[in-house]
Amino acid sequence: MFDSMIIVLKPGTPPREEKAVIAEIRRLGYRPHVMRGVERVVIGAIGDERKNPSLDPLRAWAQVESVTPVQKRHKLVSREAHPKPSTVRVGDVEIGGSEIVVMAGPCSVEGETQLMVTAEAVAKAGARVLRGGAFKPRTSPYEFQGLGEKGLKLLSKARKRTGLKIITELLSEDHVDLVAEHADILQIGARNAQNFQLIIAAAKTGKAILLKRGLSMTINEWLLAGEYVLANGNRNVLFCERGIRTFETYTRNTLDLGAIPILKNESHLPVVIDPSQGGGRADLVSAFCKGAVAMGADSLLIEVHPNPKEAWSDGAQQLDLGGFAQLMQDLRPLASAVGRSIASGT
Amino acid sequence: MFDSMIIVLKPGTPPREEKAVIAEIRRLGYRPHVMRGVERVVIGAIGDERKNPSLDPLRAWAQVESVTPVQKRHKLVSREAHPKPSTVRVGDVEIGGSEIVVMAGPCSVEGETQLMVTAEAVAKAGARVLRGGAFKPRTSPYEFQGLGEKGLKLLSKARKRTGLKIITELLSEDHVDLVAEHADILQIGARNAQNFQLIIAAAKTGKAILLKRGLSMTINEWLLAGEYVLANGNRNVLFCERGIRTFETYTRNTLDLGAIPILKNESHLPVVIDPSQGGGRADLVSAFCKGAVAMGADSLLIEVHPNPKEAWSDGAQQLDLGGFAQLMQDLRPLASAVGRSIASGT
Amino acid sequence: MFDSMIIVLKPGTPPREEKAVIAEIRRLGYRPHVMRGVERVVIGAIGDERKNPSLDPLRAWAQVESVTPVQKRHKLVSREAHPKPSTVRVGDVEIGGSEIVVMAGPCSVEGETQLMVTAEAVAKAGARVLRGGAFKPRTSPYEFQGLGEKGLKLLSKARKRTGLKIITELLSEDHVDLVAEHADILQIGARNAQNFQLIIAAAKTGKAILLKRGLSMTINEWLLAGEYVLANGNRNVLFCERGIRTFETYTRNTLDLGAIPILKNESHLPVVIDPSQGGGRADLVSAFCKGAVAMGADSLLIEVHPNPKEAWSDGAQQLDLGGFAQLMQDLRPLASAVGRSIASGT
Amino acid sequence: MFDSMIIVLKPGTPPREEKAVIAEIRRLGYRPHVMRGVERVVIGAIGDERKNPSLDPLRAWAQVESVTPVQKRHKLVSREAHPKPSTVRVGDVEIGGSEIVVMAGPCSVEGETQLMVTAEAVAKAGARVLRGGAFKPRTSPYEFQGLGEKGLKLLSKARKRTGLKIITELLSEDHVDLVAEHADILQIGARNAQNFQLIIAAAKTGKAILLKRGLSMTINEWLLAGEYVLANGNRNVLFCERGIRTFETYTRNTLDLGAIPILKNESHLPVVIDPSQGGGRADLVSAFCKGAVAMGADSLLIEVHPNPKEAWSDGAQQLDLGGFAQLMQDLRPLASAVGRSIASGT
Repeated sequence: MFDSMIIVLKPGTPPREEKAVIAEIRRLGYRPHVMRGVERVVIGAIGDERKNPSLDPLRAWAQVESVTPVQKRHKLVSREAHPKPSTVRVGDVEIGGSEIVVMAGPCSVEGETQLMVTAEAVAKAGARVLRGGAFKPRTSPYEFQGLGEKGLKLLSKARKRTGLKIITELLSEDHVDLVAEHADILQIGARNAQNFQLIIAAAKTGKAILLKRGLSMTINEWLLAGEYVLANGNRNVLFCERGIRTFETYTRNTLDLGAIPILKNESHLPVVIDPSQGGGRADLVSAFCKGAVAMGADSLLIEVHPNPKEAWSDGAQQLDLGGFAQLMQDLRPLASAVGRSIASGT
Repeated sequence: MFDSMIIVLKPGTPPREEKAVIAEIRRLGYRPHVMRGVERVVIGAIGDERKNPSLDPLRAWAQVESVTPVQKRHKLVSREAHPKPSTVRVGDVEIGGSEIVVMAGPCSVEGETQLMVTAEAVAKAGARVLRGGAFKPRTSPYEFQGLGEKGLKLLSKARKRTGLKIITELLSEDHVDLVAEHADILQIGARNAQNFQLIIAAAKTGKAILLKRGLSMTINEWLLAGEYVLANGNRNVLFCERGIRTFETYTRNTLDLGAIPILKNESHLPVVIDPSQGGGRADLVSAFCKGAVAMGADSLLIEVHPNPKEAWSDGAQQLDLGGFAQLMQDLRPLASAVGRSIASGT
Repeated sequence: MFDSMIIVLKPGTPPREEKAVIAEIRRLGYRPHVMRGVERVVIGAIGDERKNPSLDPLRAWAQVESVTPVQKRHKLVSREAHPKPSTVRVGDVEIGGSEIVVMAGPCSVEGETQLMVTAEAVAKAGARVLRGGAFKPRTSPYEFQGLGEKGLKLLSKARKRTGLKIITELLSEDHVDLVAEHADILQIGARNAQNFQLIIAAAKTGKAILLKRGLSMTINEWLLAGEYVLANGNRNVLFCERGIRTFETYTRNTLDLGAIPILKNESHLPVVIDPSQGGGRADLVSAFCKGAVAMGADSLLIEVHPNPKEAWSDGAQQLDLGGFAQLMQDLRPLASAVGRSIASGT
Repeated sequence: MFDSMIIVLKPGTPPREEKAVIAEIRRLGYRPHVMRGVERVVIGAIGDERKNPSLDPLRAWAQVESVTPVQKRHKLVSREAHPKPSTVRVGDVEIGGSEIVVMAGPCSVEGETQLMVTAEAVAKAGARVLRGGAFKPRTSPYEFQGLGEKGLKLLSKARKRTGLKIITELLSEDHVDLVAEHADILQIGARNAQNFQLIIAAAKTGKAILLKRGLSMTINEWLLAGEYVLANGNRNVLFCERGIRTFETYTRNTLDLGAIPILKNESHLPVVIDPSQGGGRADLVSAFCKGAVAMGADSLLIEVHPNPKEAWSDGAQQLDLGGFAQLMQDLRPLASAVGRSIASGT
């Protein structure tokens, strides 16, 4: 998806070798454009990379110092392709509009009571979507891996009871049909952020896809992961920042709130912030949500548990029900100060 | 400043070697406390490290698997030492109180007109402190290195004319007296964040010290750099987040807004955000300031230039005068939504 | 797999709350052990986490400052479980013994001639395993995605002709049977390094599994990914370092050669170095291989192409046939200097 | 030091604004060169940046998408300026020639006996330079800060007794004369890697300068720090890799051995590896040294202490005297395998 490619030759490249590079650019279907600097020759190669072979092999030429694309390689996700912001609809819930949509619920679905109590409480406080993990990716094979299908059925039951939409993580290509049957939004987790086979399979369900940013994924790679969804015919992509990996050890991850204005510059698609994974600490969730709302996030994905002290996974980062209700109240004046709103709850 | 030290022995350590470790802990003046795990022996060593030799050499013992301090090593900067927030006074300006103090001005002092025009405009828009670099740390020896003393004199003149306080960077121990003569706040830049000799020399002036976070400085190291100032008798420390270095290349740095609530948890001292260095792009400054205000920052340090297109350094990240005035207006409702205020300007 | 857990209470925790924590530790099935520091109480919790509920929820308790496990959570991969180095056999090739096994071949299988020419050349130079991608994970949906099954069949054909074993990447759970039919070693790529569903599916084939390190995977996480393989009944794991993501932009990744001695300390399993992905530049491959051999690597995975200037993917990092033959000659004296050997070739 | 600058305009830039950019490039003294891509206009600006104002302000122009320099900004340190490798002479010791020069000694000078015993032992084992810290940069103000001048005098005494050259760290501009009086090589530590005032002051002594890489310093920034020394008239620069900061927590730092071939590509100056700081663990020092020798390092800087278990600083990473002697023997066959040698000792 580049517009042109800038090829810099090493200083002192003999004219014969310069000609060879130019001939190769032509042979591959591009129009060469030569510019002579003080010591180096710079060649622009202009043409459509979708119709011609890649120029990447030029990197292997001994006389070539660097090969740099001018245009970004993502297309359908970009503002250039779609200048206005787009919204993602999930039933009567619209993400990316003036309402900031709050998704909340437990890290893992642990049982019927835990889920229903949480679902009713978050709905009452203003959440529009219920989150809950049924299949859990765990760093160690000896940790709790989720309730699986039983968890999905409980999520469906919670939707029926509360009207909340459901978001849950998809872990395996083999579960696509099963998870899509129960969920309104399919979450692709950070560990699968470049598992393109899984992303394509998810895209083909037509469901909304929430793409978490990988632990060390650049903005550009993230946009290209979204491009995989759109290129497979599904425009319902939500980009979810959940903390990147840095040198800092105070928090599990470093939440990159700057990703909000950057994604808004680059893409038309809605942006979600996960303040729970982002810091891994319940005492930071409120500040992270406030920052996210002020900076233009379209949605928040918050872990809430009726009793975080006894949660089966990630207790330290989950809010309790009272803490969540208080947070929702604290966020409303900020949403209002930036011209947005948060639903008032059932 | 640890409270106790946890020493873990390797599994299968013979009793004789375990006894040797315990004897060494006693010899160094600490009280050992032995705990037997499933396969490993864990020894707590309790005592005051300021009165006894370090336990660190135990790391070199073959039978020792790890040595981990329980308490943090920073003391005077911490909430434990000073549970309430403290404020830093610079004349009639108080940083850390209910007012969010805005510091603004050009990256570099370039000349009298540039500086006076900027100073008057930022004062009018509500800034309370004028920033401007006279000594510039530049990655390359061939870049503009600042006007030096001439720049400092212009800053003093701008203070006289506008009533703004002055912040400027201190680069060298040899300039301490000179810079302290003209500045109200001494800035220690990111590249000197662990130049302890410079920090101590600055501390001894008694002036307020703004400590920028180093490019890859952990929160803990940053707090310890602040500890150097307090341990040298100066309580006027401002911690300034200005972006950390990560794998992301979209922006020059990754602004870590999460540092605000973390510093507020750990320390009683005020927190400043630099949104200009933080992203290196003027188009991100507004979103970064909004996030900072919502998340509890006490002050903002913003680069403003009458004509960024012709700035001698870092033009791409400086706001113009109109952009700055607009930003100040946009921030007031957010400050108000979190119970704070921004000065209304002259 | 921890041995004990160290729980630190906040300074000033009242005795009543301290008792509550101790009671909870007992309730969960662990034996508490209290140690009083200068200002803090430290509690060790001793017991078998596989038989009892997790202690992690204690992180959510207000009076708890930190919860730290003493033992590592990986078990079957560790030196503690298996003190002597283990080797992985692939037919008559043994990885982890005194021979340093070289795996070589093109980044992507592009066609019969390209593959056969390469296979014969690398076999002649001393390689024992042929690499070649049939399914390619590509950052952008618009890049070449591999020849798929056709590529696998060519790899099988090359094995028949040359006697080389085959390693190729497994990208999807849906391809497990197909890829296992043609490959001797299944490669799990960096992007799927925590795609546990794929790892489990691969493990169950019983084939040797080469686990590439994820872009920002810690050593501990990597060992735990290996633990997934062993916990699923397959002991044939190879850990392959291929460069981690850092702030440095000179190379695509930063090859962490220090992972060799660290893995050798922690695990009994063989270590492979990929110098081609590691730097992304053919001109660094030789130095990286030399370092790897000197530091104790058991195997090298090297990209070789008959004409890198026309490669369909990653041309810049592939050696040509002559370069590879020269490299093999250069490595033999180094292997010999550390008491190892490299096969002499067909 | 760029050769030309590539300015990319945003797609859809009107001709009038394109002309304005071109006019500005001309006004600043550069020759514009326009290239039309598929959707974007790319403008090359050719000229000598040392004679003309910077083009950086163009980044602030609304119609400009990016501004990228073609040439590197370092000059005197580069291979282009000095195609052959250069060596640094310190008396009769030559660094960068066929001998691999080993520098060894304690982290801190602790007293006469400790230093003399170490000096004699490392000289006997083949070291040519004695290291030892007299002024220590410590993260916390409460840690041991070095013996200062007393330590320097002991180093001088050790030189007299053993004939070893002396390397020690320079921490402060105020100590330049004092340290230069006693040391043969001035070490600039990682925390001062961009303390340009200190680097310039050190350069002016004419002594050899060992520049440690900063914790998150790119290769390019490091070369530019070296450029500060050469631009101040001192050609005796040694680049010392000592571990960079990454996400990995197993070791204190991640030793980037890949810096050796990269620096050899880019610069003519010698490269030193510090395996002690690099990993922070004595058990990794041997493997790191072997890798360094195999990959082309010109020198090693190794921490050695007669009794690491009682060292006043960094005991865990120091070798004892026997360990060092053994290491030197182990390295000789590797040095020989790459055509180099290590001195045989006194």
